[in-house]
Amino acid sequence: MAGPSWDRYGEYLGLEKILTAQTPWSGTPGKADFAHEEMLFIVFHQTYELWFKQTLFELDDILARFSRPVLDDRDIQPIVARMGRITEILKILERQIDILETMTPQDFIDFRDSLKTASGFQSLQFRLIETRLGLKREDRMQFNHGSYDRDYADASRKAIHAAEEGPNLHDLIDSWLARTPFIADGDYTFWESYRAAVHVMLDEKEKTARQALDGDALGRELEAITRGRQKFENIFDTKDRVWRLSPRALQAALFITIYRTEPMLQGPATLLNLVMDIDSLLARWRYRHALMVQRMMGLSAGTGGSSGYSYLMQTLEKHRIFTDLFSLSTYLIPASARPPLPDSLSAKMGYRSGTGR
Amino acid sequence: MAGPSWDRYGEYLGLEKILTAQTPWSGTPGKADFAHEEMLFIVFHQTYELWFKQTLFELDDILARFSRPVLDDRDIQPIVARMGRITEILKILERQIDILETMTPQDFIDFRDSLKTASGFQSLQFRLIETRLGLKREDRMQFNHGSYDRDYADASRKAIHAAEEGPNLHDLIDSWLARTPFIADGDYTFWESYRAAVHVMLDEKEKTARQALDGDALGRELEAITRGRQKFENIFDTKDRVWRLSPRALQAALFITIYRTEPMLQGPATLLNLVMDIDSLLARWRYRHALMVQRMMGLSAGTGGSSGYSYLMQTLEKHRIFTDLFSLSTYLIPASARPPLPDSLSAKMGYRSGTGR
Amino acid sequence: MAGPSWDRYGEYLGLEKILTAQTPWSGTPGKADFAHEEMLFIVFHQTYELWFKQTLFELDDILARFSRPVLDDRDIQPIVARMGRITEILKILERQIDILETMTPQDFIDFRDSLKTASGFQSLQFRLIETRLGLKREDRMQFNHGSYDRDYADASRKAIHAAEEGPNLHDLIDSWLARTPFIADGDYTFWESYRAAVHVMLDEKEKTARQALDGDALGRELEAITRGRQKFENIFDTKDRVWRLSPRALQAALFITIYRTEPMLQGPATLLNLVMDIDSLLARWRYRHALMVQRMMGLSAGTGGSSGYSYLMQTLEKHRIFTDLFSLSTYLIPASARPPLPDSLSAKMGYRSGTGR
Amino acid sequence: MAGPSWDRYGEYLGLEKILTAQTPWSGTPGKADFAHEEMLFIVFHQTYELWFKQTLFELDDILARFSRPVLDDRDIQPIVARMGRITEILKILERQIDILETMTPQDFIDFRDSLKTASGFQSLQFRLIETRLGLKREDRMQFNHGSYDRDYADASRKAIHAAEEGPNLHDLIDSWLARTPFIADGDYTFWESYRAAVHVMLDEKEKTARQALDGDALGRELEAITRGRQKFENIFDTKDRVWRLSPRALQAALFITIYRTEPMLQGPATLLNLVMDIDSLLARWRYRHALMVQRMMGLSAGTGGSSGYSYLMQTLEKHRIFTDLFSLSTYLIPASARPPLPDSLSAKMGYRSGTGR
Repeated sequence: MAGPSWDRYGEYLGLEKILTAQTPWSGTPGKADFAHEEMLFIVFHQTYELWFKQTLFELDDILARFSRPVLDDRDIQPIVARMGRITEILKILERQIDILETMTPQDFIDFRDSLKTASGFQSLQFRLIETRLGLKREDRMQFNHGSYDRDYADASRKAIHAAEEGPNLHDLIDSWLARTPFIADGDYTFWESYRAAVHVMLDEKEKTARQALDGDALGRELEAITRGRQKFENIFDTKDRVWRLSPRALQAALFITIYRTEPMLQGPATLLNLVMDIDSLLARWRYRHALMVQRMMGLSAGTGGSSGYSYLMQTLEKHRIFTDLFSLSTYLIPASARPPLPDSLSAKMGYRSGTGR
Repeated sequence: MAGPSWDRYGEYLGLEKILTAQTPWSGTPGKADFAHEEMLFIVFHQTYELWFKQTLFELDDILARFSRPVLDDRDIQPIVARMGRITEILKILERQIDILETMTPQDFIDFRDSLKTASGFQSLQFRLIETRLGLKREDRMQFNHGSYDRDYADASRKAIHAAEEGPNLHDLIDSWLARTPFIADGDYTFWESYRAAVHVMLDEKEKTARQALDGDALGRELEAITRGRQKFENIFDTKDRVWRLSPRALQAALFITIYRTEPMLQGPATLLNLVMDIDSLLARWRYRHALMVQRMMGLSAGTGGSSGYSYLMQTLEKHRIFTDLFSLSTYLIPASARPPLPDSLSAKMGYRSGTGR
Repeated sequence: MAGPSWDRYGEYLGLEKILTAQTPWSGTPGKADFAHEEMLFIVFHQTYELWFKQTLFELDDILARFSRPVLDDRDIQPIVARMGRITEILKILERQIDILETMTPQDFIDFRDSLKTASGFQSLQFRLIETRLGLKREDRMQFNHGSYDRDYADASRKAIHAAEEGPNLHDLIDSWLARTPFIADGDYTFWESYRAAVHVMLDEKEKTARQALDGDALGRELEAITRGRQKFENIFDTKDRVWRLSPRALQAALFITIYRTEPMLQGPATLLNLVMDIDSLLARWRYRHALMVQRMMGLSAGTGGSSGYSYLMQTLEKHRIFTDLFSLSTYLIPASARPPLPDSLSAKMGYRSGTGR
Repeated sequence: MAGPSWDRYGEYLGLEKILTAQTPWSGTPGKADFAHEEMLFIVFHQTYELWFKQTLFELDDILARFSRPVLDDRDIQPIVARMGRITEILKILERQIDILETMTPQDFIDFRDSLKTASGFQSLQFRLIETRLGLKREDRMQFNHGSYDRDYADASRKAIHAAEEGPNLHDLIDSWLARTPFIADGDYTFWESYRAAVHVMLDEKEKTARQALDGDALGRELEAITRGRQKFENIFDTKDRVWRLSPRALQAALFITIYRTEPMLQGPATLLNLVMDIDSLLARWRYRHALMVQRMMGLSAGTGGSSGYSYLMQTLEKHRIFTDLFSLSTYLIPASARPPLPDSLSAKMGYRSGTGR
């Protein structure tokens, strides 16, 4: 009698499924019509889908923690850990394109027709990731002159709609930031304190300019200072720029960024930084993907009818989600001009027995 | 008596210069006004300049070999080796941004003012690299509402002008490709042979369509086939698309890509692939740099007065040099439809004693 | 009526299998006993197995080409391409450990007991890769005080034995190298020519030493020169060192390395370099894996009963396969001392119509 | 009149020094005896020395903060940031070997003799990094049958001795860990609580074993449980294993690892993880370096007289500094068996106004 066909390791990893899921459409391996390179194409995309599954798994856990009415301080560590993991996954997704690029455009054309309407644009999991991060249906590039929906199976369509209705990271972070205590604490209001410091800094600059410069040079400098003042006055004026984050969330993000060494803000500052990492890494992956498509197919339309490279380039900036956090850097000022926190406030943000070691 | 102040290793590497070339402008290390993070900023850019020097050194050697009236077959190996080295350098230039991104936007603002008009846009070596690769002055984004030249010292300006007058990789590759033997050889003309094969392939598609489809579906398919025919007829029609490479160079590049297993074409095919790698890697570096600038400075203007992120994004595609090679993939056809080489021609491209082992 | 549950893309990639193959043993996701981090552990290893499958697929193609009585010159390009692909895969296998290392040792211990006897050491595909590369059963570290075989299912055991009987890359490369023409060609014998050049070089060194030095310094230098002479005399003397490659293969490898710019040797030189890359990358992966195991489990025995870190460290050098190619560098001499190829020989290794462009 | 020879950017970066510090010893670029590849060799090592300088700069700042009698809670963030930066630098140092490996062994031999006694082993800065991390003189591999000192210039020797006398990261972390509050707090003693939990866990295992097994199987399981008990009893018994960290520091490290979600322990846990990252990355760099040396020089002695590959392999594990932190994982137990912290203690480790958001 034969023993088991899989050892414990193979059973544990479901290798019976994993290693039998490669079915090339160009032909059968070993037969004449089979395109050798199609195997790589399949395996490459399967590893992507596995990593997408893992990313969704981590994202769901993060969303669940943020969805609670109050975020426990002990949740910051696991949220940061899961976000860090997502960034490492995104790095690998980008880097492993090095493997796919060992396939030449000529290799690809040899089996491209057999893919018919199958297209990476149909990846349900990737769309779910974008949606749970906060990409809204109305902000998506229209693909193929119609709704994304058309290309999805029924079950997928339902899953996408459910994700669109459900919580997303952008909005949960907006709420969490808006709940940040201490940006108004007794007499202290962070934004008033910060705005005052900005004006002191600019007054100082103006004084120096008037002493050191004259004529056109002075004029140009004074103009620049006036623009600086307006910049800070208008930060939350939605006429100039549409922020997606709420004004209170933006203030909190600035507060956390500036006072990030306070024990209570160290975790949140790391968290915001990771959100920007995720946004950047997704954008870098999009660009790398676009360049690869351009190399493989030139100006041709993509499989499944997408418009290929030029379509992908249009999504590059349009599909970004957390650009507000990047724009916030516009409003930072040097440490020397920064208003110190009131001692009483700083104390509240320390550890209960914080004496150091 | 004291011994030598540097051991042989330090002397060899010029460490007396290398390790004393860090002079922060925010203040003196150890003093209050010094911004700790400025040291990283300096060292980071110094490593960039060292790698730029190495890149120019390799590029010069490549240009010199291509500039000879006839390229010796033995030169392909060193050219490919040097290009491969440049791609590895470019990969590291992109990846080591991971180091710089450990600096937060708040860290940067603490010493940004002290940089005054110094700006990475002034890197002479980077501009020389772009120029020697083939970026033309008139194709550059205008920076700062004026000529690039304004920001350069006299000696730099001269060096840039000399580079613009001198040979560049794009044009040398154009000439080298255009000299490719065998794309017309006796009765055989590659382009005629290829065009005929395309029409046979499309005739076949049309026949299949007429048998299998009718009504609108047939109409759409026939339209697609007609577009396919036109695409191939118009490839060298400069009304539709401005190619920078000459028609003969484009044909040669296609020939090399398609018949890359012929011994004589293996090296050239690798070479063309590396040229595309260099173009992609530079583009990826540009995008990564733009994202970093956006994170560090938001919507602010760059140091030295550049317009920061939005300027950088405009250069992204505009400063690419070898897009023609990418576009060429539009014209590839599956191996099954590809016309075989005449035996006599294939023989000429083999080794004189090629019998294999 | 419900539509299809998978779109074309999902069907193509076999996502019904791929995305349902994750079955944690610590408990059910969502339930209390489930260890969150186990999902990563499973997905991580599944991507490994997919890449192993791809590696075997490429290796099999390489072995088939090398197994033919005569290797066609046109086969060098695809062999080099597939080897290049394997190196890119190995790089990603190493780098994606960055993802797994976001799991802490404490996270791992939370589900480690549930793995019972399942162990990465049981990966059939990894063992097949090692075997097809050329690792012999008798050169393997004995694991768990017994034969590897015990841990494998019947079908796996058979597959391993078949691989051990079948062709492997080391031996096929040995034969291919040994068949290299021109290392003896008419009057010319590479090894004689090279040995003579070495002695001329050493004679020169001796002469210089006798003029410039005296006493102990001269003695030491002369001794070094004598050792140099012996090194070259004894290179194929198996008393001093057991080479696994045959003497003729070693000579051919040296010949290819030295004259790599000759058109006919460019491909083979690239190929040998890639073989060393594969050997190095596997070794680096092993070390990285060992460090990770040490961090996760300290001094504990591994899952499945392996002895963990110290076992892995013992395989580090013992499981390397192509060290002969590395050792060969011992016998290189500077270009200035290198004997030129006879013109007639060089001509034979050029292209039939090699005139350059 | 000529303008300035350097623009502001070039002046800021000291390019006059940086870009004139490459002086090949094989000959003058452009002349016959010059080995093209030597330029890469020089530039590569110069970037290494720049990154070493940056690493020392960050290390010094870290050591200074740890050297204060009490570490302010606000110092954890910058220490973690600087350690994170060092890990990114070490990753690049390893990866950029990809650039150097585009040089073949034959390329290297062409200028190797001209290096004479200059050797990477003489890098003063690298030795200072090792020393400040905590590598002790007596734990170093003896190099070249003598003291390291012989190869250094006087000034370097002094710098090394000063570093050996000064503070190092290992010992400062030992002291900092040993000062951790709360591992004994009122009635609570972490180690007693933990040891008790281990015995409860093992009692449970024993009970289960006695119910489910008999005969030899039971005997083996009971033996394993007894070994488990002894392992925990003997952890600080220096007869079995020489720990370099003090018993109290080891307990604190375990405490931090286990209860890492407590707000006050999140930073320290990240810090310990980074220390292990640094140790691993240095080890990986050493191995990668050894493999490169083996490929370049085979079995030859290194430049400067080191014994090359085999010497480097001996330093691989011997020069590691923080292995105790890795070994500690031996003593972790699953979350389900872990003793909960007393509420009063947990409260002390929270934020003064920790209510969450």
